[in-house]
Parts: sequence; C-alpha cells; structure tokens
Amino acid sequence: MNGAESLINALAEAGVDTCFANPGTSEMQLVAAIDKQPKMHAVLCLFEGVVTGAADGYGRMADKPALTLLHLGPGFGNGTANLHNARRAFSPVLNMIGDHATYHLQYDAPLTADIEGFAKPVSAWIGLSQSADDLAAVGLQAWAKAQDYPGRVTSFIAPADHAWTETRSASAIPAVAAAPTAASADINAAVEALQKGSVAIMLGAMALREDALWQAGRIAAASGARLITETFFTRMQRGAGRVPVERLPYFGEQGADYLKDFENLIFVGTKPPVSFFAYPDKPSWLSPEGATLVQVADATVDALDALTRIADLLDAPAEPTVLQPRAAHALEHGAINSVALGKVIANRLPEHAIVSDEGATNGLGAFLMTACAAPHDWLTLTGGAIGQGLPVALGAAIACPNRKVVALQADGSGMYTVQALWTMVREDLNVTVLLINNNSYAILNIELARVGVQNPGPTALSLLDLSNPCIQWTAIAQGMGMSAERVTTVVDLDDAMARAMAARGPHLIEVMV
Amino acid sequence: MNGAESLINALAEAGVDTCFANPGTSEMQLVAAIDKQPKMHAVLCLFEGVVTGAADGYGRMADKPALTLLHLGPGFGNGTANLHNARRAFSPVLNMIGDHATYHLQYDAPLTADIEGFAKPVSAWIGLSQSADDLAAVGLQAWAKAQDYPGRVTSFIAPADHAWTETRSASAIPAVAAAPTAASADINAAVEALQKGSVAIMLGAMALREDALWQAGRIAAASGARLITETFFTRMQRGAGRVPVERLPYFGEQGADYLKDFENLIFVGTKPPVSFFAYPDKPSWLSPEGATLVQVADATVDALDALTRIADLLDAPAEPTVLQPRAAHALEHGAINSVALGKVIANRLPEHAIVSDEGATNGLGAFLMTACAAPHDWLTLTGGAIGQGLPVALGAAIACPNRKVVALQADGSGMYTVQALWTMVREDLNVTVLLINNNSYAILNIELARVGVQNPGPTALSLLDLSNPCIQWTAIAQGMGMSAERVTTVVDLDDAMARAMAARGPHLIEVMV
Repeated sequence: MNGAESLINALAEAGVDTCFANPGTSEMQLVAAIDKQPKMHAVLCLFEGVVTGAADGYGRMADKPALTLLHLGPGFGNGTANLHNARRAFSPVLNMIGDHATYHLQYDAPLTADIEGFAKPVSAWIGLSQSADDLAAVGLQAWAKAQDYPGRVTSFIAPADHAWTETRSASAIPAVAAAPTAASADINAAVEALQKGSVAIMLGAMALREDALWQAGRIAAASGARLITETFFTRMQRGAGRVPVERLPYFGEQGADYLKDFENLIFVGTKPPVSFFAYPDKPSWLSPEGATLVQVADATVDALDALTRIADLLDAPAEPTVLQPRAAHALEHGAINSVALGKVIANRLPEHAIVSDEGATNGLGAFLMTACAAPHDWLTLTGGAIGQGLPVALGAAIACPNRKVVALQADGSGMYTVQALWTMVREDLNVTVLLINNNSYAILNIELARVGVQNPGPTALSLLDLSNPCIQWTAIAQGMGMSAERVTTVVDLDDAMARAMAARGPHLIEVMV
Repeated sequence: MNGAESLINALAEAGVDTCFANPGTSEMQLVAAIDKQPKMHAVLCLFEGVVTGAADGYGRMADKPALTLLHLGPGFGNGTANLHNARRAFSPVLNMIGDHATYHLQYDAPLTADIEGFAKPVSAWIGLSQSADDLAAVGLQAWAKAQDYPGRVTSFIAPADHAWTETRSASAIPAVAAAPTAASADINAAVEALQKGSVAIMLGAMALREDALWQAGRIAAASGARLITETFFTRMQRGAGRVPVERLPYFGEQGADYLKDFENLIFVGTKPPVSFFAYPDKPSWLSPEGATLVQVADATVDALDALTRIADLLDAPAEPTVLQPRAAHALEHGAINSVALGKVIANRLPEHAIVSDEGATNGLGAFLMTACAAPHDWLTLTGGAIGQGLPVALGAAIACPNRKVVALQADGSGMYTVQALWTMVREDLNVTVLLINNNSYAILNIELARVGVQNPGPTALSLLDLSNPCIQWTAIAQGMGMSAERVTTVVDLDDAMARAMAARGPHLIEVMV
C-alpha cells in the first residue's frame, strides 16, 4: 500500500465519504487511491472555487467534512474565497492539497509556491506530511480538527512522493473534541437579564438549528424575549411548525435602529453585530449604548446546551408558544420583483427543501416571504465573498440527495463560479437554479451613494452594470448541459417553479427582474 | 481631493492607463476616482482571476503595469492563481486591494481577512497605506517596484477611510530602477565556452524579444551555438524574418535527452531547466552531468545587454546568418489534430498577431507549425496554473488594440476563467478564440501513467473526463454575447479562420479534435 492509499483508506474509515476534486499531475496517486476506495464518492468540479464552495455546502448539511482535492498552491488559491466563506460559516471542510515530491521543491519548478502561505489566511489548522508513513496520520489529524465544534476549515499538504511511496504504517482514528459548553456565570447572567425584560436573544450558527430554536422558543415563551438572527447565518431551519426568528437588517444604521430599544442583548452562537462595511458617519458597532450585553456562547460554544440550560433555569414551558403557521400567498400578476419571487417560492417549496441564498438585493424579499413555507433549511453567504451560492447548492445536494435544493442566485455573483452548473448536471443533482437576472451589480449601485459618492459618472456606473452585453443565462446553462428556461412574469415563474419542484434533477430558471 | 483621487491621479500621471477591475463596496471611492480620471481606462471583469490574468497579458505586451482593482482578501484570493503565473512570467502587475476602513477592522466584520497574508505568496512587494496622505505615495512605490526589470507583481492595500478622507499631499513620481547588468566575469565565461564549441544558449524572459534574439543570432553565427528556449516562456517574438529558437520539450526525460550531448550550457534570461513535475525514477535536473553551466543572466538581469556584449566580444557578424523564412503549409483534408490546427493558424495569422497559448496537449503542434508564420508574439502559461489563456488574451488585446489576438485555448483550462469572454465582447476586443474541445483533461490522462498509476479504474478516469456532459462552447460564448461557430474538419476550420482573421472584433471558433 502506498501513502496515498493509506491516507484515503484511513479517511474513508473515519467516515469521509465525499471528495470534491480538481486534481492535477501531482495528485494522480491520490486520484488512483480514491479510485480504489469504494466508500469515497469523487465529484469532479471544473474550478477550485466550486470545489471549496461545494465542500462548504456539504459541511453545512452533513455536519461532517467532505474532502477537497486541490492542485498545489495556485489551485488552493483559486479556492480561497469560498474557504473564507466556509471559515466564517464554521463549516467543517478538509482540504487535501497536493504538492511536488519533496526532493523536487529545491528546483523551484514553475508550479512551486508557498502552499502553507496560501493556506494560512483561511485555515484553522494546517498539517504538513513528513513522510509516506506520516501522511495518513496528518490527514486524520486535519479531519479531527475540522470537527472542532461546530466546524473548521483545515488543510494538509500531501507531497507526491509521500503519496507514491510504499508504507505499512497504520493510523488510529483520533478522537473529535467535544463541544465546549457555556460557563455557568454566563448562563446565570443571561437568566438574570431575561428576568429583567427588554431582551433580544441574538442567535447564530448552531443556535439556528431546529432543536436549538425550540429551546430558544421556550425561553421566549417564558420571558417575552425577542429572537433575532445575525444577518448572514450558516444554516437556519425555518418554515411552518418551527420557531420563527427575526433577521437583523443588513445596513448598519438600520441594524442599530432595529436594536436601539433593547436594554439587554444575549448572544448565543454569535457575537455582538457589526456593520458589514464601514461608511463615513455611520456606526460600525450596532448594539445600543448602555445596554447590557451577555455573551453566553459564540459560534464555537455548544448552542443547544446553552439554550436548554437557560430555558430550564427559567422553568420555561416545555413547548414554545409561538410556532410559524403555514400560509399560502396570493400572487399578483405582472412583472417579477423580489417579494413576488419569494411568494412563488414559498407556495411551491416542498417539505425539507434546502435554499442556498445568494440572491443579493433580491434575497431579502424572498427570505421574508418564505417564513410561512413548508419547513426547510436556508443557507446564506456568511463571509461576503460572492460566488458561493451555486457551489453551496451543489454540495448541499450531494449531502442530501433526497431533498430538493433551490439555488436563489443573483447574476453578478453567479458568474464567479458558473462552472458549478456543469457538476450539477454530471451528478444529476436535484437542484433548481433560480437565476435572478437584473443585468447589474445592483447592490453596488446602492453602496455607491452610501459611501458618499455624489453624481457618479459613466465610468463608475459602467463598472456596476452587466447589461453590455446582457448575459443569456439560458444559453450558458445549456452550454453546460443543463435544461433552462427564461421567465419574465409572475405567472410564468409560478408555472416554471411548479414544474421544477415536481420534477427531479437539475434545471435553471432565468428570472428576469 | 480625497485619498482615492490623489492616488489615481498620481498613478495616471506616472503613466498607468488601464485598470482591470472587480470592485466591491469598500472600493467605491476608488471607482469614483477612476471615473474622474480620463487617462485611466477601466475594464470590468466578472471574476478576479480574469482581472489578474488580463493584467499579466497587458504587462507582457505593454512592458508596463496595468492596475488591478480587487475587493479585500477573498477578492484578491480569487486572483492569486493568475498572479502566480504573472510572478513566474516576471510580468509587471500592480494590484490595488481595497480594505475596510482602518477603524472598522477591530470589529472583525464578515469580509475581514488577513489581506497581507493573501498577498504574500504572489507579491514581490506589498505596500500598506498608513493614512490618506500616504495612499498615493504607497501606490507609486508599488508602481515603481512593479517595474524592477523586467517586471514584478506588487500589491498595495487601500483602506476605505484613506480613500474617502481629504488630503492635500502631493507625491513625486519615484524613479524606476535600472535593469541590472551581467557581471563581466560571467560574460567572459560565456565567451570562453562559446569558443570551445558544443554549446547551447538557453534563452528565456526578455532574451526572447526580437532585439535580444537578433544578438543571440549573431552569437550563433559566430560560434555555431544552438539557441534553445525554456519550455514555458513569457513572450517570444518569432515567425518570418526573426531568429528561430528551438524549444525544450515539456517532459523532463525528453528535455534531459535533448540536452545530453552539450558540453556547455549558457543561460540568458533563464536558469538551468528542471522538469515541470517530479515522477518516480525520472530526473528533476535536466542539464547533462559534467557539462559546464554558465549562468550569465537570470530573468532579472538585462538580457539584451548581456547578449550584445557577448556577440561583440566574439566579434560576431553584424547580422545573424539564420533567419526564419516565411512558408505556407499544404493542408490535409479530414479531421483536425494539433498539427493541422497549427498549419491553418500559420497560413492565416496576420502580421504582428499575438497568440495566447493555453492549448495544453494541442499547443505544441500549433507552436511548431507556426514557426514559419508571419512575424508574431507567442505567450505561454508560465506558472502552470491553468485558466490563464483567455485573460492573457484579453489583456494583450487591451494593450495592443491594433493587433489581432488569437487565444489558443484548451477546453479544460478555458472553463476556469470563462468569464473573460464577456469582457472581450464588452470591450469589443480584436480576439479570435480557438477553443480546442477534446472533452477531456487530456494531459492528465498522459500524466496518470507517467506517475506510475497502472490500470486506472472508472473513478480515476472520470476525474479526467469532460464528456459527461459535453460542454457546448458555442452556447457558452453566445450566452456572453460572443459570436461563435463550431468546426470539425480542416477545411471548415480554415474557412472559419480566414473569415475571423479578416474581420475585427471578438469571435469564438470551437475546434472539435
């Protein structure tokens, strides 16, 4: 057995069942080892940003890491933006980076680069294999570290000669660390605040899963506290029958205004909110001055445990009093906007669907309208590096083959990792892409004024405009083998959505707004 | 005047006339400043890998840096693979990276990341602005450093508050360093070796420009030395009337075999060649054992000066004896292969065309057949990070609007930065894309066997296969507004090529091989 086989077998034994791959020459032994390991599903992606975004989506839905297979430093570099998003999502992601044979590095061949340097800004842990005997152990360590609660991006470097050299060493599967729990003093401080009233519980990360929200709902029932999520969360379980959560507005001054009357803020699975960007004369820090802030648990501390302990200490009722009712929206005829889009999605979304939301300026309307949809999971862009929505949808569909995935995708950001469409077709994934085409980086038109640019000229405006030429998404999808159609009215959108939700397999609906 | 305007005006004053841009909120003040500066041409790209690859292509052809505009750490991350290629090409590239306002960094907002960490592996120099007053000076320093002979990738970070704060400081344009010249001892050693005979002069970087090759041709005329280029070079000026150069084969053992009978190797603009990848039981170091190696100038030492001094010391004739004659190829009918493709290109290529070669397994045949074409420039993938060919073609076309650009592009690598097609249309660039579609990562099928993988199974082979689904490049091109056609025979290719070379503007020919 060579080092590559030893590594891949060990990871498969540990439970890694998926490898999103974009290999090159230096990874051919790893490819061969994956080939021989029937427990490992290899998913080819045509660009590394798709690989890493897919691993993020998989991690969010499977709660365990997928493996990525990346080609040296520059291949990893192409994946860093979506690893940044995964890092911010606390997704478990396990990066396997091929490298030259160790003895070849001294020659500074064209692809030689500082791989560790590439990996550092996005990796919580980096492993360097020292020999073929060591390769599996390093991979397993990275696997364990990727599961530090609730997840981390970890990376390890697999030199080609360690992969192809024979080894007899066996590696024990290391223990995954238990989730840290909140300090009793912080739990007690939260209980005390809840007894005073005027409380918002700010929720993020694992606090937005159904079980944790149930506990938050009990607390709300006992205390009257409002439940509010951070603006960009990893995964929220929502819809009919679940505990509803308000969402903090995106723009900083609106967020600050939203929170201004609370005297107590409790944080579980998140930290005090800050504005996404800085703007001249607008606040960065959004919590009201003078309010008591109780940091019970950030994203890396067990949220379910914390919320359950608080609820129990409050003697909260066994069940929340407020659960989201199912409701259907009446549709208005005519052109499509984000609210109309959201209504159609809400009416048509099947039970336990997964929505990957990179809808940008059209995302919020859809989010609000789908509160009353059938129960589903909603995934957002956690790190602000656009080009994440399609890959995350891809990865979620691999993790959950029996659930419908809806990619709510803006045009500008969709272009970054458009290659994801191809893999959706290749793997026959159950993904419906709602490609929202407004021919513009619409958010930047808003931001231009907000940062104080007055009377922008034609060059500035042209840099935010995608209409010259207009992108024909149906043609691009068909070029990658995906069936596609274009809709311009609510009625046509509703009809297309009904068909897409009833069918299985990949399909793109270009929604003109 | 705010910091952004001060910066952009200073760079324009220094001669920077092009900005490849993919901005976000934190760069809106820079966008507004570019808008107000009529000397700066802003080119929107839909993905950062296109931005940086285009800057590489521009730098190779203009011999001065274009500016890039990138959105914080993750935006820069998306551009790192092509910056790695630019670094290996010694292209001048000047990266302007937006950042949050400095006072906002403490809040660790979602897009906050270690920008300097992202920049380090690919930047020869990184500048950090300390204030609005300082921003222009830092940008100018990066501009000067980008022009260290023959070029470097440099980066500077422009925080949003430095961009929007008023400043009155003026910045003097710094001097660009003169090119270092070769040591006399090395020149003399080269002359001595040339007088002994059995000499190959290995040429790279600036030694492959027409003027330097002329001097190399004089040396060859005086000494009988063979002229051989490194396998992957930045820019070679070749074709009819120019000094012809042999090309070292790609695979290491072939390269070693090619060089094995030389007793003396002289290096100008390059270093002793090494194999691209390591393989079990194959050499990494390609120079023959016992040969005398004379390192006259690596890529960072003045090649024209070195070759001229050697030629003069040899009392070489004023003109080379061997210049490439123009010749036309007879075409064979039938299916297209790389040689047939090369013959068509050679016959049809107009004078002073620029070829961006990311043809992978089909690139070499085309290169060999075009030796006798009209004089042209040939650009290759210097760093091995695929996804460079289309952006480089884009940047070359911006730098040289009056020359025809041909992008010789393989399918697998073309998908990495496919968004480049859109900008070619938007800017109405004179680029003909020859998209070579073999539905495969063909090179990896070869490499699989070379690294010792015997009897690869279906999973391994599937990771090298692009035929499920087949990519319809004509549809993808049309989706981005580019006219496109598909050819399957030599006659149809020749016909399409004749029309494309006679017309102006962007066009894609999907070449089925």
